[in-house]
Amino acid sequence: MLKINSNFLNLKDSYLFATVGKKTAAYKKEHPEKDVIRLSIGDVTLPLAPVVVEAMHKAVDDMSRRETFKGYGPDQYCYGYESLIRSILGSYARKGVQLQPSEVFVSDGAKSDCGNILNIFSGENTVLVPDPVYPVYVDTNVMDGRNIVYMNANAENGFLPMPDEGVNADIIYLCSPNNPTGAAYSREQLKVWVDYALKRNAVILYDAAYEYFVTDKSLARSIYEVEGAQQCAIEICSYSKTAGFTGVRCGYTVVPQALVREGVSLNKLWARRQSTKFNGVSYVTQMGAAAVFTEEGERQISENLNYYRKNAQTIAQCLDELDIWYTGGKNSPYIWLKCPNGMESWAFFDYLLENANVVGTPGSGFGKNGEGYFRLTAFGSAESTREACRRIKALLEKK
Amino acid sequence: MLKINSNFLNLKDSYLFATVGKKTAAYKKEHPEKDVIRLSIGDVTLPLAPVVVEAMHKAVDDMSRRETFKGYGPDQYCYGYESLIRSILGSYARKGVQLQPSEVFVSDGAKSDCGNILNIFSGENTVLVPDPVYPVYVDTNVMDGRNIVYMNANAENGFLPMPDEGVNADIIYLCSPNNPTGAAYSREQLKVWVDYALKRNAVILYDAAYEYFVTDKSLARSIYEVEGAQQCAIEICSYSKTAGFTGVRCGYTVVPQALVREGVSLNKLWARRQSTKFNGVSYVTQMGAAAVFTEEGERQISENLNYYRKNAQTIAQCLDELDIWYTGGKNSPYIWLKCPNGMESWAFFDYLLENANVVGTPGSGFGKNGEGYFRLTAFGSAESTREACRRIKALLEKK
Repeated sequence: MLKINSNFLNLKDSYLFATVGKKTAAYKKEHPEKDVIRLSIGDVTLPLAPVVVEAMHKAVDDMSRRETFKGYGPDQYCYGYESLIRSILGSYARKGVQLQPSEVFVSDGAKSDCGNILNIFSGENTVLVPDPVYPVYVDTNVMDGRNIVYMNANAENGFLPMPDEGVNADIIYLCSPNNPTGAAYSREQLKVWVDYALKRNAVILYDAAYEYFVTDKSLARSIYEVEGAQQCAIEICSYSKTAGFTGVRCGYTVVPQALVREGVSLNKLWARRQSTKFNGVSYVTQMGAAAVFTEEGERQISENLNYYRKNAQTIAQCLDELDIWYTGGKNSPYIWLKCPNGMESWAFFDYLLENANVVGTPGSGFGKNGEGYFRLTAFGSAESTREACRRIKALLEKK
Repeated sequence: MLKINSNFLNLKDSYLFATVGKKTAAYKKEHPEKDVIRLSIGDVTLPLAPVVVEAMHKAVDDMSRRETFKGYGPDQYCYGYESLIRSILGSYARKGVQLQPSEVFVSDGAKSDCGNILNIFSGENTVLVPDPVYPVYVDTNVMDGRNIVYMNANAENGFLPMPDEGVNADIIYLCSPNNPTGAAYSREQLKVWVDYALKRNAVILYDAAYEYFVTDKSLARSIYEVEGAQQCAIEICSYSKTAGFTGVRCGYTVVPQALVREGVSLNKLWARRQSTKFNGVSYVTQMGAAAVFTEEGERQISENLNYYRKNAQTIAQCLDELDIWYTGGKNSPYIWLKCPNGMESWAFFDYLLENANVVGTPGSGFGKNGEGYFRLTAFGSAESTREACRRIKALLEKK
């Protein structure tokens, strides 16, 4: 008789975004005349860069002719095309990080890698995650029955928790710039994490999905900017927010050759996992992605990034003028603010929806330390972001 | 201290295709003047159908404009676009199978689903796989530490093993038409398997990747053509061989709502797995796939399928004339033949390479019951397939 994976029964359903959607829809139904602005959007809204579009059209044409048709991707790098891998190595080299082609694994996105990477680790490890947290880190480990330990991110540490020497962990999740808080670690802070991991033979899973939003030179864009990181960290990257690929699906994960645990190369384990349970990313997608880190590609994506950065600035400036505490806004598309007047997250959600017709995301949905906080995002249009800020300012100045 | 998933250490490395490649390269290096023909190809060679190319170009254009840009796929069906899911339901309806949209999960390919589906099952289940076998079924279960039981596929049962009432299994792998043997189950045979699974509360993982090669009306194209299958089977399908999508990456897996084990809906478990560890398939890919099962799409892909079918016929006819026993060739792109004169698989490989300059795949690489057998595929060009058969005939008639 078949037994299900009973760990799934321990998953908590998250109603965060569903409830946000339901409340918003209910309000709009009651007030059809109101112009409701969503600053809760976690998805990009600007179209793909022209170089990407051109590369994808060319790749589709390649697929239409027998002479240039492509089947399964090349075996050598787990189905990643060398041109794409070379362009990723180029992006790393510009950050001062030297990697080998065999250390870069192309995938259909950071979320897939984030879940699938756990396959190479025993279920008996203890996992350290920040609170508040991107729920995928928690749920993927619950599915494997791993012990999860939380570390507090809060106003005191600027939502950038540092290691607690009293806590032992085998797998450590760091996301910088962070989702949902927008806070980003400096190289010095990451060095402390790397030393902590090395001392314990732990592995850091470093989620760098938002690294292209970093402009401050003192902040790390890759954990490999820190010495020793290649001995203890796996870095998960994405084209989703970097180049608007949320609907194109491409990411990459770096597993350094130097990363060895229990005498086994994690690079080899991951290569075995991917070559067994994965068959690569669409050729069309890979060619589009390869265009991103060219000189012209980087110029074009930085136009989109700057558009979102300006939205983040608009929101940050509004909060500055209202003297509201927040993290992010700089070096991140997220703004994580303390709800004014000691309001709880959902109370502030309702207040903002009803009085300013602006939708955000209650921080309490990301963990207990999120209570009393609120997330706004920079992925809307410039016009609606400005209008939302005008309304927020008018509403909160009144009080 | 981090512990790796030590089940990975129990994986056997398969050197099958690597050794085939190495031996072929060595022969070509020694005999640069020889025209070596590969009938070992497991990948398609014909370009995408025009309707698919057109749909993909249009989708790339959609991604280039703000008004039509697409980010993350729709939440409702685990990021599958409804137009694609409706076209898949249409393909099923033409086989007489009625499914709901929520029962179809779009993915980046059958191999991914084949590995990932195991996530929803306990590691304590016993798995039944045929020998010879597509190695992914074995390796993905070794990674989870499951107990694996083999069933013999051989000349006596036409490489179509039937249930042994004395054997208990929780998860049963069936692949029909089969890779590597090309043998395909009839509806009556599948009914016996469905009854066996229902009696034991087992689940059948039915790999239907080659179903579009079936032309014989007595053979099943979907296990759901059999009564009771929706209570015991998950069906994994692919556009790879159906529409030449090996480099485009799209498949779909059906988990019926009626499939419940230990009081839990497997459909809900899989939806939870996919929404947590996956973020959907490229919009461009999905639009291309949606064009496949249109009237014009089906007409165009059947041209490609007929091209490969004719190659299979060419090989089958050659073997008939040589009075060599084989399975497949009809209803399948694979031909699985008994090596002549009692030769072992690798001996026949060498003999054919050296004397006919034709490359195939030794059956012993797929399991112990493959010893003495040999796989040829229909994915080459018509010209080279004819030429290979001419040489094989000339060589083996001499003896």
